[in-house]
Amino acid sequence: MNRLETSLPDGRRLTLYWTEEDGGPSSSLAPAGPPGPVLAARAHGERRWDPTRQEWVTLATHRQERTYKPPADSCPLCPSHPGKPLTDIPFERFEVGVFDNRFPSFVPDAGAPPEATVPREDGLAGLLQRAPASGRCEVVVYSDDHEATFSDLPLARVRLLVDVWADRTAVLGKEAAVRYVMPFENKGELVGTTLSHPHGQIYAYPMVPPRPREELGAAGRYRDRTGRCIWCDTVEAESRGAKRIVHADEVSLAFVPFWARLPYQVEVAAREHRPSLLSLEDAERDGLADTMLRTARAYDALWGFSLPYVMAFSQQPAKGFEEREPLGHLRVTFMPFHRDAGRTKYLAGSELAAGAFLNDVAPEEAAARLRAAASASTVG
Amino acid sequence: MNRLETSLPDGRRLTLYWTEEDGGPSSSLAPAGPPGPVLAARAHGERRWDPTRQEWVTLATHRQERTYKPPADSCPLCPSHPGKPLTDIPFERFEVGVFDNRFPSFVPDAGAPPEATVPREDGLAGLLQRAPASGRCEVVVYSDDHEATFSDLPLARVRLLVDVWADRTAVLGKEAAVRYVMPFENKGELVGTTLSHPHGQIYAYPMVPPRPREELGAAGRYRDRTGRCIWCDTVEAESRGAKRIVHADEVSLAFVPFWARLPYQVEVAAREHRPSLLSLEDAERDGLADTMLRTARAYDALWGFSLPYVMAFSQQPAKGFEEREPLGHLRVTFMPFHRDAGRTKYLAGSELAAGAFLNDVAPEEAAARLRAAASASTVG
Repeated sequence: MNRLETSLPDGRRLTLYWTEEDGGPSSSLAPAGPPGPVLAARAHGERRWDPTRQEWVTLATHRQERTYKPPADSCPLCPSHPGKPLTDIPFERFEVGVFDNRFPSFVPDAGAPPEATVPREDGLAGLLQRAPASGRCEVVVYSDDHEATFSDLPLARVRLLVDVWADRTAVLGKEAAVRYVMPFENKGELVGTTLSHPHGQIYAYPMVPPRPREELGAAGRYRDRTGRCIWCDTVEAESRGAKRIVHADEVSLAFVPFWARLPYQVEVAAREHRPSLLSLEDAERDGLADTMLRTARAYDALWGFSLPYVMAFSQQPAKGFEEREPLGHLRVTFMPFHRDAGRTKYLAGSELAAGAFLNDVAPEEAAARLRAAASASTVG
Repeated sequence: MNRLETSLPDGRRLTLYWTEEDGGPSSSLAPAGPPGPVLAARAHGERRWDPTRQEWVTLATHRQERTYKPPADSCPLCPSHPGKPLTDIPFERFEVGVFDNRFPSFVPDAGAPPEATVPREDGLAGLLQRAPASGRCEVVVYSDDHEATFSDLPLARVRLLVDVWADRTAVLGKEAAVRYVMPFENKGELVGTTLSHPHGQIYAYPMVPPRPREELGAAGRYRDRTGRCIWCDTVEAESRGAKRIVHADEVSLAFVPFWARLPYQVEVAAREHRPSLLSLEDAERDGLADTMLRTARAYDALWGFSLPYVMAFSQQPAKGFEEREPLGHLRVTFMPFHRDAGRTKYLAGSELAAGAFLNDVAPEEAAARLRAAASASTVG
């Protein structure tokens, strides 16, 4: 993996990644800008504490103006071309580009929350707490081909992406404010994607967010009781049980979990206890790339169209969970929202208000269909 | 409030409610059926335990075949008419009708989970646990007018609905399997509603679902620390701070909470500590009906169309939280998914995978807009 770090004319950070075999990115069409304060200058966010659930909610009012479904010829994630306005990547060709989100929810130099604009209130102490929206939000562009999707990428590119996600986990995890790094992808208009160019995002949160925090709590209680990792045991049980497997190799397992919340939810997990992307050995990175790509292609093969989904990594927090044996267990969750080719699963009253998920499709059936679709597709 | 309990020809329970002033429902067009086992016979659900989050997920594969956007002339929630196929309410006119959902996620006589169809697995002990999907799911039809919405109802009808929700909380809470009763409404196609006739639902869960469980936990820790109810204090702080109030009267408060997860989220709460719908005095029921209706009408007035939302009650669990001073504090949450007239808020990676909500609109601004819209509409 090669990488080049630079900055955009407006000061946002841009890092390009490429493989040994390739010639790498073309020369930049723009001079690097001054790194830094421009992000905070354009962000007007803060975090607010919900004491009734004991969770942070992030207010990001500047994001209301973010780019919304631009025409294809003004895609900000496409390569730039001489004589035309610069995109967010001022290179004529590239493999993978990672840059600071133009409309970030979290920024490195957030400072104190904007008390001036929201004056201190006379509410009861402790109920109305604010904190800076510190952290960082990055965009990961998977390809310079506007028309591709994740499942169209060659295996070598997905393998490069695994290295990129690992590198960003390291780089972002070192920033002072960052507590948790989550690479993810919102794919398709159904999940609100406003740019169709193949890309994902990385949120480097200033807290361990609610769901990972809950899951680490459950993993801790399980380890206290059994001495083992709950995800190691889950992977072992699903691997032995076999009926919910989508794809398996020696280092990774893709399966529809016994307790799937969504009809075609798939978990891709490392078989060994690897707390984060940083802990994966080379063969495990190979396996993860292959298994993720097979899963994504199985989704598209299932009903013959590019299936929208949310994909997200779960891993060890960047800080605050220092232990000799970290609780985190690396995995990738794919959450599609279709329950068959023509009908979508809506999250509504039971899921959103009560947190009680209702799944219309038996995980065993979903896995059988995805397994058949996976074995009919090829990866190479 | 008057009520008539009967059963549909297929055995499902139907209860009609009407006010003193009205003549009540017409005579039934069908003989009452045998009450009972028909629900379990058509349900093929079970609950599955997710040990990685310590939550139950409900599998309801029979719901995959549920009614999906029928033409208006075959609406199952409309009144029945002689010489035409019966609907789910075999009366020519009615005020409010409550019946067992034809496609229930939970049923009273669920029995043991269907081990026969999903054989016991050799997974590690405790990881793969099933339980019956016991409980009950009801449909609450607000009106016999197919074209109305909740905000079109006269105040007297909403007042009747408050009594109906309270009565169902009592009736369902007494059933052996039921631990938590949640009246709610999914309004509009945006949140997946497949029947446009004005109606809500009630889920009587066999567990305290994840979000109420979390909230009761947080309320318990707050009370241990301060001796007070966190919702009483929140209502007090929001009432004093004033800037996030949508509508206020002597017994109830509608406000956009300081930590709103969604741009136009509104909480309607009792000012006094009332654990559940059953605890409300008459004047509080009057206030709740008026405040809910003003909130719903403010939503429609805001951008000039019927705003889709999820509305749900939070209250004291039916059982398992017996205490001298119950922790629950009655409230209604309205969750719309628009961030302005033309754009919707999608729940995606950060919300769904991390549980970290990003809100694009300052609660103070949303409240000011809703307050203006509320004072411009009339309720009577």
